[in-house]
Amino acid sequence: MDRHTAALADAEDPLGHLRAAFSLPAEVIYLDGNSLGALQPAVAERLRSVIDGEWGRGLIRSWNDAGWVELPRRVATQLAPLLGASTSELAVTDSTSANLFKALAAARQLRPDRRVLLTDDANFPTDVYVAHGLAELTGDLEVRVVSTHEVADHLDEQVAAMTLTHVDYRTGRRHDAASLTAAAHDVGALAVWDLSHSVGALDVAMDTWGADLAVGCTYKYCNGGPGSPGFLYVASRWHDQATSPVRGWFGHARPFAFDLGYQPAEGAERFLDGSPPILSMAALETALEVFEGVDVAALEARAAELTGLFIQLVDERIGPEVEIVPPRVPTERGAHVSIRHEEAGALTQALITRGVIGDHRPPDLVRFGFAPLYTTRVEVVDAVEQIADLLASGAWDHDDFRLQRTVT
Amino acid sequence: MDRHTAALADAEDPLGHLRAAFSLPAEVIYLDGNSLGALQPAVAERLRSVIDGEWGRGLIRSWNDAGWVELPRRVATQLAPLLGASTSELAVTDSTSANLFKALAAARQLRPDRRVLLTDDANFPTDVYVAHGLAELTGDLEVRVVSTHEVADHLDEQVAAMTLTHVDYRTGRRHDAASLTAAAHDVGALAVWDLSHSVGALDVAMDTWGADLAVGCTYKYCNGGPGSPGFLYVASRWHDQATSPVRGWFGHARPFAFDLGYQPAEGAERFLDGSPPILSMAALETALEVFEGVDVAALEARAAELTGLFIQLVDERIGPEVEIVPPRVPTERGAHVSIRHEEAGALTQALITRGVIGDHRPPDLVRFGFAPLYTTRVEVVDAVEQIADLLASGAWDHDDFRLQRTVT
Repeated sequence: MDRHTAALADAEDPLGHLRAAFSLPAEVIYLDGNSLGALQPAVAERLRSVIDGEWGRGLIRSWNDAGWVELPRRVATQLAPLLGASTSELAVTDSTSANLFKALAAARQLRPDRRVLLTDDANFPTDVYVAHGLAELTGDLEVRVVSTHEVADHLDEQVAAMTLTHVDYRTGRRHDAASLTAAAHDVGALAVWDLSHSVGALDVAMDTWGADLAVGCTYKYCNGGPGSPGFLYVASRWHDQATSPVRGWFGHARPFAFDLGYQPAEGAERFLDGSPPILSMAALETALEVFEGVDVAALEARAAELTGLFIQLVDERIGPEVEIVPPRVPTERGAHVSIRHEEAGALTQALITRGVIGDHRPPDLVRFGFAPLYTTRVEVVDAVEQIADLLASGAWDHDDFRLQRTVT
Repeated sequence: MDRHTAALADAEDPLGHLRAAFSLPAEVIYLDGNSLGALQPAVAERLRSVIDGEWGRGLIRSWNDAGWVELPRRVATQLAPLLGASTSELAVTDSTSANLFKALAAARQLRPDRRVLLTDDANFPTDVYVAHGLAELTGDLEVRVVSTHEVADHLDEQVAAMTLTHVDYRTGRRHDAASLTAAAHDVGALAVWDLSHSVGALDVAMDTWGADLAVGCTYKYCNGGPGSPGFLYVASRWHDQATSPVRGWFGHARPFAFDLGYQPAEGAERFLDGSPPILSMAALETALEVFEGVDVAALEARAAELTGLFIQLVDERIGPEVEIVPPRVPTERGAHVSIRHEEAGALTQALITRGVIGDHRPPDLVRFGFAPLYTTRVEVVDAVEQIADLLASGAWDHDDFRLQRTVT
């Protein structure tokens, strides 16, 4: 596909008009929406209104008058269709790490006779730390970390929960979530998914997968802004039994009665704890409006097309000098693609200098994300031209291997 | 004190110039800074820059280029002098509830042979929920809730940690933190303080008190904005032994190495977990700049003077129709004062209609906060006039007892 054909295809894309909702610097090809989603002018406007009007002039009254109290639930309602969930199955709160802690503790509670948390060595490291932290605290769990291709082989009747990240943050490889969830259920284990690299880009379907618990972040494909709140999913069939180990008044059935006795709220809302971060929560609410009427299958289709185009063009324009890391089958990868190159760090820096923003994952990966809401085919074509040109020139600082401290 | 004398005293107050840093609506007397601190124009300006410049244009690069990665530590450095702490003893992160969970888990770890978490019935309910949540999760703790005046009597060698809120969120009564900490230490227990209603208003001194662990929020007297991040204090003498049960990459010694093995960061920073909420964290950083060069003893002195003036004027102008709830001795109360009245809910609403913003704590309290950075003596005089006038008139809606859902 050449640039002209790409532009024509962009113009005909049923999601193509959504790009206009985002403000991206003109000089940049932004292929890192898998790490930090782009700003929408409507979000900046909303934040000005929250800061100057609701906080500055409304002050404490805004908890009621501006509806701050209801923000977590309103955002849950917006996220639900992106996850194949219902509002009552979602709590929008805390960091993904804290939510995973709560989800794994709930899984332990739901499977009290089992002792193993099963995960894979391709998981995002934090998720493994969280599992170990819970195991050390309770003293009765074992964390089993296995090779990513052998997870199903290690499912047995000792496993309380299988906890995996749907899309590998480094490679872009995607687990078959429905099959693995079924395999977990076959041995009586629960399935706990980290959807950080999936939600807002792929056809995530808690209902179809039959997932038990899930967590994820909203600052990647959901464009909530840096460090925006995470979410926690609890399937409705567990609502009678699952409680949160980290309790707080926002997860109480009647927070403003100030009862000393804890009475959990209905559904997943009991997994809320302290006062919600209103600035981030308001930004997220407005950021999610762009998804209204957008089907997750359409997002996934566009992500597949963009990643597929990138892979095809790298093959054609660059060839074996770089290795395409994720699978060629679209359903086996997410919305980002990593390429392997021995000077990946320097290459990433040189590309950023040229305005092509991806990121480096040590030791040898350059990672590019293709946010289906706003990345265009023309950008994919231009980015591959830049990569090819750079590699052909060899014109980058080969000593510049400093670790980029960007955030997944 | 009349209005003229009050104005003269305000003009001579060594902290009086700080009011100019805040934007408060002209028609309002804001006596709820103990619940949500006021906005500073500098904070609004900073947020515009973070949103439009750092997020919108800098995008993922801002984690390094705008120093987002270092924000938690920079804010810890700012908070340290307000707490009598050092930077390495503070983690700025998560909600107060989540931080208390981590602090109590650390206390359990540091006192492995003890089984009791001791707290009082005047504690903020969330803090009691958190203790119970940890006890249910670990299965080896007992939460002992005693009358607030009898805490010292219940300290014994079964107590792993005494966990109290320094200033009672309802009444304004203050614990003698240094004495209670010493009493806890006398029986080998740890002292865990919730400083939400103290930090930024009182002379909080982790070092002098000898506190072991502490938590608190920053959206009250620290003016970080609605739902801004909490903090967690860990005394340096525990740094070798205390670990966080809720782990994440921001609490790792080398987060960007993406090691599967967890290696805790030095000091309290290991109690960070997921990606920090950048908008709230940046707002907080700018909000705290107003404290530069302000001594906590001066804050406490001004809070004592403002609360004392309020109490004196209520006595003089209103008399026994309302009861002053906190102690008359300044060192035994915080920076807010509650008055008791049988129609407290309706009274609160009527006062808000007149522009005097306090809040209602059921069943019979109206609570007024006196933020020492920006509340003036003139406002205290005017507020008491409004209360007296309202009570004398009886002109409020006696049916309006709906629960105000404002946030402590």
